[in-house]
Amino acid sequence: MANAIPSRSENYSEWYNELVKRADLAENSAVRGCMVIKPYGFSIWEKMQRALDDMFKETGHMNAYFPLFIPKSFLSKEASHVEGFAKECAVVTHYRLKNAPDGSGVIVDPDAKLEEELIVRPTSETVIWSTYKNWIQSYRDLPLLINQWANVVRWEMRTRLFLRTTEFLWQEGHTAHSTSEEAMAETRQMLEVYARFAEEWAAIPVIKGYKTANERFAGAEETLCIEAMMQDGKALQAGTSHYLGQNFAKAFDVKFQSKAGTLEYVWGTSWGVSTRLMGALVMAHSDDSGLVLPPKLAPIQVVIVPIYRSEEQLAQITEKVKEISAGLRKKGISVKFDDSDANKPGWKFAEYELRGVPVRLAMGARDLENGTVEVARRDTKEKMTVQLEGIVDRIETLLEEIQQNIYDKALAFRTANTHHVDDYAEFKQVLDEKGGFILAHWDGTPETEERIKEETKATIRCIPYNAPEEEGKCILTGRPSSRRVLFARAY
Amino acid sequence: MANAIPSRSENYSEWYNELVKRADLAENSAVRGCMVIKPYGFSIWEKMQRALDDMFKETGHMNAYFPLFIPKSFLSKEASHVEGFAKECAVVTHYRLKNAPDGSGVIVDPDAKLEEELIVRPTSETVIWSTYKNWIQSYRDLPLLINQWANVVRWEMRTRLFLRTTEFLWQEGHTAHSTSEEAMAETRQMLEVYARFAEEWAAIPVIKGYKTANERFAGAEETLCIEAMMQDGKALQAGTSHYLGQNFAKAFDVKFQSKAGTLEYVWGTSWGVSTRLMGALVMAHSDDSGLVLPPKLAPIQVVIVPIYRSEEQLAQITEKVKEISAGLRKKGISVKFDDSDANKPGWKFAEYELRGVPVRLAMGARDLENGTVEVARRDTKEKMTVQLEGIVDRIETLLEEIQQNIYDKALAFRTANTHHVDDYAEFKQVLDEKGGFILAHWDGTPETEERIKEETKATIRCIPYNAPEEEGKCILTGRPSSRRVLFARAY
Repeated sequence: MANAIPSRSENYSEWYNELVKRADLAENSAVRGCMVIKPYGFSIWEKMQRALDDMFKETGHMNAYFPLFIPKSFLSKEASHVEGFAKECAVVTHYRLKNAPDGSGVIVDPDAKLEEELIVRPTSETVIWSTYKNWIQSYRDLPLLINQWANVVRWEMRTRLFLRTTEFLWQEGHTAHSTSEEAMAETRQMLEVYARFAEEWAAIPVIKGYKTANERFAGAEETLCIEAMMQDGKALQAGTSHYLGQNFAKAFDVKFQSKAGTLEYVWGTSWGVSTRLMGALVMAHSDDSGLVLPPKLAPIQVVIVPIYRSEEQLAQITEKVKEISAGLRKKGISVKFDDSDANKPGWKFAEYELRGVPVRLAMGARDLENGTVEVARRDTKEKMTVQLEGIVDRIETLLEEIQQNIYDKALAFRTANTHHVDDYAEFKQVLDEKGGFILAHWDGTPETEERIKEETKATIRCIPYNAPEEEGKCILTGRPSSRRVLFARAY
Repeated sequence: MANAIPSRSENYSEWYNELVKRADLAENSAVRGCMVIKPYGFSIWEKMQRALDDMFKETGHMNAYFPLFIPKSFLSKEASHVEGFAKECAVVTHYRLKNAPDGSGVIVDPDAKLEEELIVRPTSETVIWSTYKNWIQSYRDLPLLINQWANVVRWEMRTRLFLRTTEFLWQEGHTAHSTSEEAMAETRQMLEVYARFAEEWAAIPVIKGYKTANERFAGAEETLCIEAMMQDGKALQAGTSHYLGQNFAKAFDVKFQSKAGTLEYVWGTSWGVSTRLMGALVMAHSDDSGLVLPPKLAPIQVVIVPIYRSEEQLAQITEKVKEISAGLRKKGISVKFDDSDANKPGWKFAEYELRGVPVRLAMGARDLENGTVEVARRDTKEKMTVQLEGIVDRIETLLEEIQQNIYDKALAFRTANTHHVDDYAEFKQVLDEKGGFILAHWDGTPETEERIKEETKATIRCIPYNAPEEEGKCILTGRPSSRRVLFARAY
């Protein structure tokens, strides 16, 4: 295996693209902008799904499934929603092919034109709220707490594996409530779930906050988000939770009878994370040798490589390995014993480094004699020779340490690359020379935000939850501001 | 809750439609032919997915994800494949909407026409084999054992919830092998997996067999299937496993270097089950009061209903119920305690009957005095008063008994409704008067099969695996036949 991934410092963007392909996470398909998620990559996604799905269920949500297609007229019902999505819709216009008269293959059958075109869902608010209309009559039907795991399509012109693809996989929660307060509490709760997932599972520290009006979801009254820092200092939005107010209820006429007997519009939320998280995971932790996966999301947590000169040695090693593997599996730790003779140990070491397996054990003749094993951790690349006695507990603890260390490292990196800036010239200079997050004052107007974006390519990632009150002046206009907001260039 | 589901004997078809809606499994959506799978229905599907997915992984398969869209030219590469699917394809022709000049809403932007139309996948052989071409070079890359969980679209003119919908959910396995024998063994293995799932989880006995050439998957050399009998005597195909030979390898030029150094086409299989299984589950077991769910697939296995006259009684009951619930949950049994005061016990009893909860416990004041609980099983509707002592073990055993009883009942029904027929007049009479499965002789020609289908609406469901050799004469032509095949009218 030629280790020809570009280094991060050389070309961060190419490093990412190559790593995603080489580590067997995903590749571009023959269909423009659509990716193939390969088995190894998909098994990470499955772990993400399982963890998130458990959290959704713990918070009282159930899964359901709504149609892939949305009638064109539905999309138009909420004005800002259609405005936001119309430019990137895949449109189904026909329902049949037929043989070309000249025998050249199949063509679209012009007699099979749909009366109303169907949009491949870019998100499902419209088709779901049109359904909720029939499900909700009374306050007794509320709250309605539903999630769906689905594929969605947004016609992107410039695509990148996981980060921006025409088709992607995601989950979208859609809930309905009898009060504004309850809907807002749900919006916040789901952002907490995303933050917990990002930090505890993906080992990615995130900043929770409010999007500005410019950056809100099309159709939302308020969008909450989590923002993460990648190793090039750029921001990546890793999850959003929207308070929809009564917008979709009004668009689809969804009313309920309140306890008091009045007829009122329902309050809504929606929230989602997508396969984009796969991109965040790669860009937050990995290095020039390959993936660095937090143990909780690693498909293989421990790989064991035998080093032997004879079949007899291999048999002895295998016997020891069986014991260790059984002990690890009993603790729910996934193990792979790679005793294939097609490749040499050195090749295997590089391969499992590339794939980000958190712990590698190597066992050779001397280890057999001494009752030891070589333990290598992927995150720090440290190696140590360890007694077999108590090895299972040792590895269990090590995996926890690795999970924590990966998080700590990302947090330290973010802290080191977060700057307080009070001057526009310095703002531009920091962006160009250092990158990272900038906490600065803003006058609160869309115009200022837009001008800063045009001039610097930096956007307001969020108004952080916990931003302390602080008197200051907008970096661009000098107008008064009462708290700093988070600026960064972003994916 | 008005119990107005038509009875099975009255109108089997309406009974099914109403039951699926009333029991909150699914409903028709605003999009023609597409269904909404409701939370309760989806939670059954999730249990099916989990069980199947575990079996796929035990047999060495990994999940991956391939694009929703298939370029039109790909579909045409395998001649019989395009022939089979061209007439039911949803076609994407444009990638953008724009505001109508007259302000009437959004219209398809004529400037955003795709150069090549995209088909929403009706099945993924073509897009997957075009990918496998890059993944397979040598015998070392084989076998390639991949599955995907996905939505697919086949434009159906007459649709029915779960049984036949324009969009449906399924899994599709796609494997590649270096020999014909290995591919055939995989094809058989996966049919065994489906049969095991149907019988051990869904409690539906199935007949395993070969499809005739007429009924094969478009592009397969051999299609294996499992066929189940519904309560109206009709057959339902519950899963298929296809041996593709080298058809798709040739269409997409997928070759590998063999151990001997020669370059050869790869051998393939594909296999799938879909949300159709939900329809089979309902139609195989349920009754005029509602769903009858086998415990292994029931979202709620035990429901507990308190019967009380005072808050004090409720508190005492609740205390007892907590103990029982904790004991059941420890054994992995799902329990719901319905202490809502919005509905009376009688209403709840009917509701959980409708939803097919396998075991219902009711506890009242007298039970508290006597240390007993009323246990009702859904399948037989038997009720018994049981001592609380040892109740958890008793319920665990009862759930196993119910699972077995539901299977046994379905098997007995199938046995009673399977007929050996040797005469064409009798064949027609049995079909019209009794229905069910008919084992009869057939001369092996597509013409005879076709004529029988036209004249009687019965098709050859399969040539059963274990059909004993038996000299006989074709019921239609009198030509010699060496084994009976399985005829039935089918869904």
